[in-house]
Amino acid sequence: AADGKLMSRTFAPYSVYKGKAAFSASPRLPTFNKMDSGCLKRQRFALSATEVGSFISLGPRDSCEFFHDPAMLSSNAGQVRKSLSIKPHADGSGYFISLSVVNNILKTNDRFTVPVTTAEFAVMRTAFSFALPHIMGWDRLTNQLPKNKDEN
Amino acid sequence: AADGKLMSRTFAPYSVYKGKAAFSASPRLPTFNKMDSGCLKRQRFALSATEVGSFISLGPRDSCEFFHDPAMLSSNAGQVRKSLSIKPHADGSGYFISLSVVNNILKTNDRFTVPVTTAEFAVMRTAFSFALPHIMGWDRLTNQLPKNKDEN
Amino acid sequence: AADGKLMSRTFAPYSVYKGKAAFSASPRLPTFNKMDSGCLKRQRFALSATEVGSFISLGPRDSCEFFHDPAMLSSNAGQVRKSLSIKPHADGSGYFISLSVVNNILKTNDRFTVPVTTAEFAVMRTAFSFALPHIMGWDRLTNQLPKNKDEN
Amino acid sequence: AADGKLMSRTFAPYSVYKGKAAFSASPRLPTFNKMDSGCLKRQRFALSATEVGSFISLGPRDSCEFFHDPAMLSSNAGQVRKSLSIKPHADGSGYFISLSVVNNILKTNDRFTVPVTTAEFAVMRTAFSFALPHIMGWDRLTNQLPKNKDEN
Repeated sequence: AADGKLMSRTFAPYSVYKGKAAFSASPRLPTFNKMDSGCLKRQRFALSATEVGSFISLGPRDSCEFFHDPAMLSSNAGQVRKSLSIKPHADGSGYFISLSVVNNILKTNDRFTVPVTTAEFAVMRTAFSFALPHIMGWDRLTNQLPKNKDEN
Repeated sequence: AADGKLMSRTFAPYSVYKGKAAFSASPRLPTFNKMDSGCLKRQRFALSATEVGSFISLGPRDSCEFFHDPAMLSSNAGQVRKSLSIKPHADGSGYFISLSVVNNILKTNDRFTVPVTTAEFAVMRTAFSFALPHIMGWDRLTNQLPKNKDEN
Repeated sequence: AADGKLMSRTFAPYSVYKGKAAFSASPRLPTFNKMDSGCLKRQRFALSATEVGSFISLGPRDSCEFFHDPAMLSSNAGQVRKSLSIKPHADGSGYFISLSVVNNILKTNDRFTVPVTTAEFAVMRTAFSFALPHIMGWDRLTNQLPKNKDEN
Repeated sequence: AADGKLMSRTFAPYSVYKGKAAFSASPRLPTFNKMDSGCLKRQRFALSATEVGSFISLGPRDSCEFFHDPAMLSSNAGQVRKSLSIKPHADGSGYFISLSVVNNILKTNDRFTVPVTTAEFAVMRTAFSFALPHIMGWDRLTNQLPKNKDEN
């Protein structure tokens, strides 16, 4: 009840009243808990701003593929090849996201493929679009005071 | 008048001047007041991030349905079944949002249906898209200082 | 020069390098100055959240119209009628925004029409979409700390 | 490892689990380093809010062009003419961005053309859409407290 009061003070739910029924929507903050992913193998792939741009502008029938060499410009250049590919499902209901890592130093060759639905892709597109200006450092624009005309 | 001055100092209205007439737009902060919803029955349905993704990516002819069991993983699992469905109007002018709750413990069976217009759905899509990164906890990205290159 | 240094420290421009030329984009904060609008007549029309939703979801061939009675629920109800209409240009290159105010108390009848281009409408759609969660009070979601799982 | 712990405490990655594989996405803050652009020539072009609106609403086959006179309203008016044009690639795979500066005072005539891909354009569209409300000063809406109903 105390929590309910707090919510009603701080958020304004969006409500739609029609006849005898009404629909009301309000946001909830996340809760976090620890999770053991249990993955035996794990690989990372850090998208650049432009690769994020490619990701968020994918149409339902589009595909894209990114290639990274984590040892680029070092003496191990070319020894590890990573590629991330995003390919649409044949019926347009989502995408396959595949990460391939060929490591000639460790003599390993990993390939992971995860199907994501349209809804899951929409979550990522929205979250990536939100994150992109922050990844680029443009969000610090908001923490500055505007200059007066005289100073310009 | 005092309020008007304050507004003109703090916001920059977006103005379009054409011939003898001009159009100017500026935002206003919300005001809140207490409201008695008067609903006799009330049910909640908390959307997950992926369900929000499904919601905001709905095309004008698309539908979706979500099923929740609030007692999942407890001894009452399966006793309460909730489903939220979103179905388009036949003429594409909006959606029907229906919430069905079958509670075998309380022997109740509630079903609520609210028609929402395209404009009301656009409000929710915009607000849900705004809320999604916050629901996911990604907004805390903005409250952090960037690392120096040396620390990377 | 000092200003240039400051900018390069605080913002990361987005740069595209191709062959001998490069393209770089970075944001600038606004400057404000006083302006005498010089309008002889002026009328206001405050959009509700749902009307903003209707505005931002307008397709290039769509139109919409909103009706307000500023004296609604008072003894002067019906004496002042305001309507805001948005109609597309015949060639799809923008919209006509018209505000009509019929005031039976002051015996006045004003009508303003301003053509807005697609680019000007895009500015308003983007700004209105940004403002909508704030108009609804959902932005206060960002100023709260997440609850721990235990408290939920 | 310490960094990994910190990340898991501060961000909630978005994870998709399917069968034996899982996909997880989380944002990373930017790092900055100094860069010598090495450009021999450099020209600036400051977009207005409406020009940003034109930029972000460009369809894949659309083009636009903006003309600026940096000495407008001074005695040097017309001496320097700048134009920025954005034209689509013939195959719809991106745009050519060209900046032309004719300076009759310095007797110079510069023209720069940079091809940008769809992904690079998506980055700019997302970043410009994010920046637009800030360029307009509407972001200060978020730093204000809402008024009580009584004060309205």
